[in-house]
Amino acid sequence: MARNITPRSEDYSRWYTDVIAAGELAEHSDVRGCMVIRPTGYSIWERIQQDLDARFKDTGHVNAYFPLYVPISFFGKEAQHVEGFAMECAVVTHYGLKTQKNDDGSVNVLVDDTKQLEEPLVVRPTSETIINSMYAKWVQSWRDLPILINQWANVSRWEMRTRLFLRTTEFLWQEGHTAHETADEAENEARMILQIYKNFMQDVLAIPIYDGPKSETEKFPGAIATYAVEGYMQDGKALQMGTSHNLGQNFAKAFGTQFQNKAGELEYVHQTSWGVTTRLIGAVIMVHSDDEGLVLPPKIADTQAVIVPIWKKDAQKPEIMEYADEIFMKLKEAGVRVKVDIRDERPAQKFFHWEQRGVPMRIEIGPRDLENRKCVLKRRIDGEKLFVEVDNIAETVSAQIESIQTEMFELAKKRRDENTVKVETYEEFKEAIENNKFVLAHWDGSAETEAQIKADTKATIRCIPFEIEEEPGKDIISGKDSPKRVLFAKAY
Amino acid sequence: MARNITPRSEDYSRWYTDVIAAGELAEHSDVRGCMVIRPTGYSIWERIQQDLDARFKDTGHVNAYFPLYVPISFFGKEAQHVEGFAMECAVVTHYGLKTQKNDDGSVNVLVDDTKQLEEPLVVRPTSETIINSMYAKWVQSWRDLPILINQWANVSRWEMRTRLFLRTTEFLWQEGHTAHETADEAENEARMILQIYKNFMQDVLAIPIYDGPKSETEKFPGAIATYAVEGYMQDGKALQMGTSHNLGQNFAKAFGTQFQNKAGELEYVHQTSWGVTTRLIGAVIMVHSDDEGLVLPPKIADTQAVIVPIWKKDAQKPEIMEYADEIFMKLKEAGVRVKVDIRDERPAQKFFHWEQRGVPMRIEIGPRDLENRKCVLKRRIDGEKLFVEVDNIAETVSAQIESIQTEMFELAKKRRDENTVKVETYEEFKEAIENNKFVLAHWDGSAETEAQIKADTKATIRCIPFEIEEEPGKDIISGKDSPKRVLFAKAY
Repeated sequence: MARNITPRSEDYSRWYTDVIAAGELAEHSDVRGCMVIRPTGYSIWERIQQDLDARFKDTGHVNAYFPLYVPISFFGKEAQHVEGFAMECAVVTHYGLKTQKNDDGSVNVLVDDTKQLEEPLVVRPTSETIINSMYAKWVQSWRDLPILINQWANVSRWEMRTRLFLRTTEFLWQEGHTAHETADEAENEARMILQIYKNFMQDVLAIPIYDGPKSETEKFPGAIATYAVEGYMQDGKALQMGTSHNLGQNFAKAFGTQFQNKAGELEYVHQTSWGVTTRLIGAVIMVHSDDEGLVLPPKIADTQAVIVPIWKKDAQKPEIMEYADEIFMKLKEAGVRVKVDIRDERPAQKFFHWEQRGVPMRIEIGPRDLENRKCVLKRRIDGEKLFVEVDNIAETVSAQIESIQTEMFELAKKRRDENTVKVETYEEFKEAIENNKFVLAHWDGSAETEAQIKADTKATIRCIPFEIEEEPGKDIISGKDSPKRVLFAKAY
Repeated sequence: MARNITPRSEDYSRWYTDVIAAGELAEHSDVRGCMVIRPTGYSIWERIQQDLDARFKDTGHVNAYFPLYVPISFFGKEAQHVEGFAMECAVVTHYGLKTQKNDDGSVNVLVDDTKQLEEPLVVRPTSETIINSMYAKWVQSWRDLPILINQWANVSRWEMRTRLFLRTTEFLWQEGHTAHETADEAENEARMILQIYKNFMQDVLAIPIYDGPKSETEKFPGAIATYAVEGYMQDGKALQMGTSHNLGQNFAKAFGTQFQNKAGELEYVHQTSWGVTTRLIGAVIMVHSDDEGLVLPPKIADTQAVIVPIWKKDAQKPEIMEYADEIFMKLKEAGVRVKVDIRDERPAQKFFHWEQRGVPMRIEIGPRDLENRKCVLKRRIDGEKLFVEVDNIAETVSAQIESIQTEMFELAKKRRDENTVKVETYEEFKEAIENNKFVLAHWDGSAETEAQIKADTKATIRCIPFEIEEEPGKDIISGKDSPKRVLFAKAY
């Protein structure tokens, strides 16, 4: 039973890949840059979807579905937008194949040149343009506003260097697209969604978040403001975990999305868009997992506890299985997501299997446990073993779900905070970035300072955190005035 | 308040389009053949997903996600399969755009010829090939079987003539792909899934179903057997509402998906695939709706009851709203999906709005109702008005949910059965098809008879229904022996 996971200290990047392989979370496909999300990985995405979808609906949003294909001319309507995405677009040029039979019976498949599209179509890298082409038809009056629509979909962005979950040619996401009467409403929407993202990530994914606006350089192509939620990964890099954009009237003007306001005047709508992706699965892996493999926060785990029945003699099996079933029913009734592993494998192999899949709790029951009406509860997060009265099993496991969830957040927060430093000089800055820290430094707001830092150190401004207080200071390069510190880091 | 729906008797096809437009269910986009599914329509799909997903999981299936893109060479591996889909494939040939600025500041967007793919990619019309390329890696031993995976995804099939929900260039679906040790297991899986589909469609969509195998001519390209569920639409046409295929070892052989069996020998896996699509929304519309618009079965309705508060003087409003809230809470606690329409519109407009969206029950409350602690409950299905004591409102509405659901199924079944006829001669057959009937006729099992009937009448064999009993007879054209009647109809 080889431990086939490279330790983090040895090679973080290999460790990440190994954790994914050992947990059977995802895999590269034969299509360059495209991943297959395997059932264990996909179950995390399903939980993310369920939880976020309920939060969106509680705040008045509804789901809809817009086409996968976008005519290339639509991209030309918003100049910044097309510049931002032109290099990454998969383009459909034909709508048929032809076949040639070879002498050996095999079939060659070729593009059918007689079936060329008049206008090529892009596979959506994001849907602002196609959605605005519809909103322009739907919106006539202020009575039609706000439109609060979300879409769960796949998108495609051609990537040269790919990494499972973090950067793939195709990924899954949700994209919200809203339209409002006033600039204030759009700004409030963009910020409210950011807060929903942050709450979800902290409370459910157990990942501490810095949230705030991006710099001008880093904002979404076509937006007037981008807000981001940023997480700290175990290697010291930042991961942008979601963004919420105030689009202003840019797309509305490009597509003519106008409404008659209460005063009877024609006005362009004010819009937002916002999204999170399957990248969140990568974040969960990188923040919580250890050298044994995946560790999942209980709230996002498809299986929160697994019961492993153990017997020495075949005669013991029926009793033990009955005991397992009793525990299973108690936990299920208490709302715990629980499984019994009845596979014909050795216990050690079962332990290993569930450890690598990140299941938060393992419940071992053997003949002696049965005698004493006890069981062993092992916590995945730290390997601690609790000896539990079966009559209290539901209360104990429910309490552990809460406790483990909180402990995981606290642990991740402690790690992030210990690795977040304030610096005053560019020398200190460079050393801190070299050592993979999150760096809070003064910045004069100029694209020049930002560009120089990126060129020198690869660090970028992750966001201008809301939680960092105003504190007058001097830019670490230009020496010009700065109202408060911003967050720099190397990022995925 | 124009009734903007063409009556069925006048023009069925226009009626269908009008119901969709009036209910704001879906709309054509600017991309040829691609639809936008609007929130009201999408909410039906969400309920379909939730219900079916639970049924799949209860029978041991898990979800996963495979790439959107399929290398064209993969299609060549299974000869029948590629012939079946070659004409419908959207093909990605490039992975970048370039832009040209015009003098007037506008931007032209062009395909970047320097970024051509070495091997073109097809946007999946279905995923047997890409999935087998993975299963071939995952399966080594009988211990790796069965694989019971489902995927919720979009697919693309280029269509010359499109129709909202029924036939679109892109649509949403689920596709199950399973792999088994034995031929029997695969056959049982294909049939079990068909039964799940049938139960769901009858119990939740309230649509009576004929289920059974397809003829050789009509089966899926690459399958050894296809089973289908067929519904009767109000215009007498059949709609194929789902299919379940026994793929045998065809794809396994094409991709080398082999395992070591219990005897230690290498063997190809036995596979199935099965799917239903957003076409089901079209079925719900066509089976249940009337000349006033959409009618939804309560189990699939996102809103089962809508409360419309009515007041004459502004002074009455607070009391009425409080009363509406009381009813709302009573229904919500009873698990009813209920809304209060508090919009600033006239009652008649609100009535019209919810009627066209198919909401099964409307609850009107005015000042006199408040006085008497009563309300008016109007059933969408037949316009019947019940005068209900508010203290019993939860029981009444819950009972109506069950009753309306059953009545809708019975009504649809009565309509179908009254329009299903047995014929003995080809003359009778042609007359029945001309009159838009479902026809049960004897068939000798030959592709020749089938082809002639299709050429003469456009009718096809929808399925060889399981529920039709053996009954020796003679083929209506050839006069040859036939063991039992099969179902013919014109189809969408």
